[in-house]
Amino acid sequence: MSTSNLDPALAAGNRCTLTGHEARHFGWRVEAGIGHVTLNRPERKNPLTFDSYAELRDLFGRLKHATDVHAVVLNGAGGNFCSGGDVHEIIGPLVQLAAPELLMFTRMTGDLVKNMRACPQPIVAAIDGVCAGAGAILAMSSDLRLGTARSKTAFLFNRVGLAGCDMGACTMLPRIIGQGRASELLYTGRNLGGEEAERWGFFNRLVEPEALAAEAAALAARLVAGPTFANGITKTMLHQEWNMGIDQAIEAEAQAQALCMLTGDFRRAYEAFVAKQTPVFQGN
Amino acid sequence: MSTSNLDPALAAGNRCTLTGHEARHFGWRVEAGIGHVTLNRPERKNPLTFDSYAELRDLFGRLKHATDVHAVVLNGAGGNFCSGGDVHEIIGPLVQLAAPELLMFTRMTGDLVKNMRACPQPIVAAIDGVCAGAGAILAMSSDLRLGTARSKTAFLFNRVGLAGCDMGACTMLPRIIGQGRASELLYTGRNLGGEEAERWGFFNRLVEPEALAAEAAALAARLVAGPTFANGITKTMLHQEWNMGIDQAIEAEAQAQALCMLTGDFRRAYEAFVAKQTPVFQGN
Amino acid sequence: MSTSNLDPALAAGNRCTLTGHEARHFGWRVEAGIGHVTLNRPERKNPLTFDSYAELRDLFGRLKHATDVHAVVLNGAGGNFCSGGDVHEIIGPLVQLAAPELLMFTRMTGDLVKNMRACPQPIVAAIDGVCAGAGAILAMSSDLRLGTARSKTAFLFNRVGLAGCDMGACTMLPRIIGQGRASELLYTGRNLGGEEAERWGFFNRLVEPEALAAEAAALAARLVAGPTFANGITKTMLHQEWNMGIDQAIEAEAQAQALCMLTGDFRRAYEAFVAKQTPVFQGN
Repeated sequence: MSTSNLDPALAAGNRCTLTGHEARHFGWRVEAGIGHVTLNRPERKNPLTFDSYAELRDLFGRLKHATDVHAVVLNGAGGNFCSGGDVHEIIGPLVQLAAPELLMFTRMTGDLVKNMRACPQPIVAAIDGVCAGAGAILAMSSDLRLGTARSKTAFLFNRVGLAGCDMGACTMLPRIIGQGRASELLYTGRNLGGEEAERWGFFNRLVEPEALAAEAAALAARLVAGPTFANGITKTMLHQEWNMGIDQAIEAEAQAQALCMLTGDFRRAYEAFVAKQTPVFQGN
Repeated sequence: MSTSNLDPALAAGNRCTLTGHEARHFGWRVEAGIGHVTLNRPERKNPLTFDSYAELRDLFGRLKHATDVHAVVLNGAGGNFCSGGDVHEIIGPLVQLAAPELLMFTRMTGDLVKNMRACPQPIVAAIDGVCAGAGAILAMSSDLRLGTARSKTAFLFNRVGLAGCDMGACTMLPRIIGQGRASELLYTGRNLGGEEAERWGFFNRLVEPEALAAEAAALAARLVAGPTFANGITKTMLHQEWNMGIDQAIEAEAQAQALCMLTGDFRRAYEAFVAKQTPVFQGN
Repeated sequence: MSTSNLDPALAAGNRCTLTGHEARHFGWRVEAGIGHVTLNRPERKNPLTFDSYAELRDLFGRLKHATDVHAVVLNGAGGNFCSGGDVHEIIGPLVQLAAPELLMFTRMTGDLVKNMRACPQPIVAAIDGVCAGAGAILAMSSDLRLGTARSKTAFLFNRVGLAGCDMGACTMLPRIIGQGRASELLYTGRNLGGEEAERWGFFNRLVEPEALAAEAAALAARLVAGPTFANGITKTMLHQEWNMGIDQAIEAEAQAQALCMLTGDFRRAYEAFVAKQTPVFQGN
């Protein structure tokens, strides 16, 4: 990761690049503008640990300023997405802690989700196998979700003695699948199968397990080929308007869209249309 | 119903018990931690009256403080759920009233829903046959809904000359089934069949009529066997976060979940996992 | 269009009539209380222009005060709904403009949606063929949507270099079809087919193309035969409660419904029920 203050365009937003950045507790690589995060402790179904939580939080925080990544693919190694907080490495220590330290932990996990929502890159989650607890939260907090029929998504917090309100689940899950269905998942912690997840709108599409990684990358590539500055504004406004009134949201969109109309990408699309060509977007 | 001020744990929250409480205008019994409310005027398809409205409002208000009830099942006697406000006992008088009295009535019915949402117990509605008007509102205001294929749910307010905005319908129904489908039901008052209600996420599941009561009780029993304090926090946060921004909701959940991590139930679940046993939750 | 200040009932709300009003840039006629808006440049699939935007904005603004229109049907001529902002007549000029003028444009288009949401008449969109860009927004901003299997709805903003946040899309579309599905449509701009649109709740129902106009008119007629004052309150409250908490929404509904209980239509429905007749509503 490098930062530059030579170029005003880079300096303005504390910009950085993440190509070549080396992650310690999960896989990370940048290819063709796509950042690939791979949770990679397959022998344990890719659990999260204190270390991987913190590093994921920091990475998504840095993505806010990254100039070389325009979409993120989030997946797990070995046929599972993520089994959530590790029982031995996270839950064991947590039962020893007092209120202030517990709040530090829940705020850290919440900050990961805040950073996933605040970075401009759309996040495509590729979900196969086990997707449980904090893993289900990572899937939920992504922008788009491709899943497999055999996948099992479980917001299993109540099965470990906790409430369903973890890392934003009570505000986000109902908006994705509806309040009644979200309530059932959060109160029971049951597995949501792949077919049902697609039917409910949790998954955008079902994909064969062996095609999942390629399909997620292809979807991300489609986004990267689009007007990436405008895509980031779409993400920002979906977040901003979460609890606005309609009239206020319309004014906010009028301002945001006027900004996008001043980009070269808008002009490029128009000129390509007139020339009967496919536009080549540049993200500015 | 009794209250105690001998035990600080009971006194702290103005706690009471509802086992043995006798309801006058509907059935009420507590079994194994489940409170069963049965609307029981089957010859009229279980309409609501001024008296039953007020008593339901008060009962759900008391459930907020009850220590012996951890889930509620709401159903109707005789193959119907509830036909709504009785035409002769409610609508007839209402057409005689002036604005202040009408507002007293609409606030009373609204207070019933507020109390249903404010009590910590998840409410499982078991819906068969007619579920109309205020009956549809009671179903909507529950947390989970099991229904039958033959059931007919109708937000029929506009068919009796009223607006669809009754007891929270314009805020809650769109979040359960989507804004477009909710608009149709509220503008037309048409019957929603059971299959459609399941497809739209209004029902969590379809059940055979003869199995409905048992399935609703089994679902409630599953919730009662879970971490009931945490379940109550789930319900509270689903309510609290209704119109919060995502970042604010995440902070609110960080606090609420840290509180749950201090409960014995969280420790019990961990210890049971390590011992390869099933956790026995105690609701504290 | 005429206004009257002779009749206090008309003068109170700056009321007007729109029967006989002549629209310049689209079709407009009032029949049996239904206002029919027909986008009618079929040779170009009914695009919007600066002129038609402004005139639609003004017409929906006037509908707020109209006494002779109780529902609106919005459709397109020649087998297509609307192809959105005309490339040559809108996008071409926009790429020349500076920020202040662009904001004037995006606010004008936003004002059209604000007026569609603020008028008391439920709007039924009849969607066949192409429904793209601003056309998709007009469909989304209606209250009810009938579509055909062959229709193609595309929130294609990102394909023309813009963000998905156009005229309220980031607040309204997620509430209609869910956050995950809305995100996909807004990030990719892809076509949503008719079957999928019904399955997701974007369309209330699929209709054969040749029956679409008649079915939309029949649905509007059903609304016009209902308690139209109360229907307008339903629309107002769906808008008002968009970002209210549940308890505040319940109080707002208590007030709004008490107002409706003072109308003659509420009494008429009761009297008709007692007399075993069908109520004849008068909208007051």
